[in-house]
Amino acid sequence: MKESTLLVFDVNETLLDLTYLDDFFLDTFGDTQVMRQWFAEQILYSQTLTLSGRYVPFGELAVAVLKMVATIRSTALTSAQITQFQEEMAALPAHPDAQPALEKLRTAGFEMVTFTNSSAKAGKKVLAQSGLAQFFSQQFSVELSGCFKPAAAAYGSVSQALDRPPAALRMIATHAWDIIGAMACGWKGALLTRAGNAPLLLGEQPDICGPDLQAIAEQIIAADRRG
Amino acid sequence: MKESTLLVFDVNETLLDLTYLDDFFLDTFGDTQVMRQWFAEQILYSQTLTLSGRYVPFGELAVAVLKMVATIRSTALTSAQITQFQEEMAALPAHPDAQPALEKLRTAGFEMVTFTNSSAKAGKKVLAQSGLAQFFSQQFSVELSGCFKPAAAAYGSVSQALDRPPAALRMIATHAWDIIGAMACGWKGALLTRAGNAPLLLGEQPDICGPDLQAIAEQIIAADRRG
Repeated sequence: MKESTLLVFDVNETLLDLTYLDDFFLDTFGDTQVMRQWFAEQILYSQTLTLSGRYVPFGELAVAVLKMVATIRSTALTSAQITQFQEEMAALPAHPDAQPALEKLRTAGFEMVTFTNSSAKAGKKVLAQSGLAQFFSQQFSVELSGCFKPAAAAYGSVSQALDRPPAALRMIATHAWDIIGAMACGWKGALLTRAGNAPLLLGEQPDICGPDLQAIAEQIIAADRRG
Repeated sequence: MKESTLLVFDVNETLLDLTYLDDFFLDTFGDTQVMRQWFAEQILYSQTLTLSGRYVPFGELAVAVLKMVATIRSTALTSAQITQFQEEMAALPAHPDAQPALEKLRTAGFEMVTFTNSSAKAGKKVLAQSGLAQFFSQQFSVELSGCFKPAAAAYGSVSQALDRPPAALRMIATHAWDIIGAMACGWKGALLTRAGNAPLLLGEQPDICGPDLQAIAEQIIAADRRG
């Protein structure tokens, strides 16, 4: 009996709802679209810090990038606003499709873990309060490798800890950059195209792609269940 | 007599005006702000390709990212629009402050080169039509290393080709990620805070920072001229 593929879930936006921050960005900048600008810059600069060997925890970077975006938008930020932002980042709720999809995958016998760009402590805290932690046997953070996804060393630290070959792992994420990085390491990928996201149609594409986690779960059960 | 610091200029947005593309984004998406979303995603994915060992030329990535943004915005792109975008990318005009600042630095005796994320061919073509190529003794592209800025290997390929130690080079750019990468390699940095850009106040900061190239040029002459 062959083991099923081990499922590795990204957390921020894949399982938890980033649009929970929209009201903060609307109140602060007068435009919810600024949330997307902040998040794109956050990922851009996380990669910059990796390429430059300048890793700092994701939450620390998030505040520095928020201040940078505020400067660009000529908006003054109060310390109360920064505290509010940090509190909301620590309280992202689960997407409504997450729990039923994870239940379906658990029932189908899959082992599931998470792998987040957040620090180990912040990642565990936010997943616990979302109610989703129960589905995962382990929770991994990029803190283990000291570099953010999509660096090869980050995925390598997880496959090593799990003691599984890359081809026995599948990364599930709503960001094409995460899937590109995992697939470059030999993992399988599943791209979730939530609103605000789309595939980058360049190079190798994941064999699984869908607009919500339930659609993704059905495709994973068809493709990856063994035994 | 000690040599002056050798000045390495970024090209896109630092010397050439990206807001030339605003009308294209307004016509295509009904919002000039989408230019900033496209550019942030372009840099984000250039870094992803570097971290994943999946380099493709910047111009090819630019079109793939434009299509990704169009999907996110539920906008259909015609092939005529893609051609127009490519033609405008190849025709970015010089920022008005570039020529006088470069003349001032040339008069002060500085050797100047460019270093762009664009391919060698596209980079040379756009700089030639802008009228600024005359100021530079050499033009470098990330094609030389096969990875985009801010990867250490990209800056390393330039300092090696110039046969100068890192501390004798200064990167001048309007993007904090470019300055972070160069400084992590031991170069000096000068951050140009054009509209739409700001410093990331995290870690080591460049000793030179200014809102336009003339202000930057004056600070460089005061700090870096020798002999």
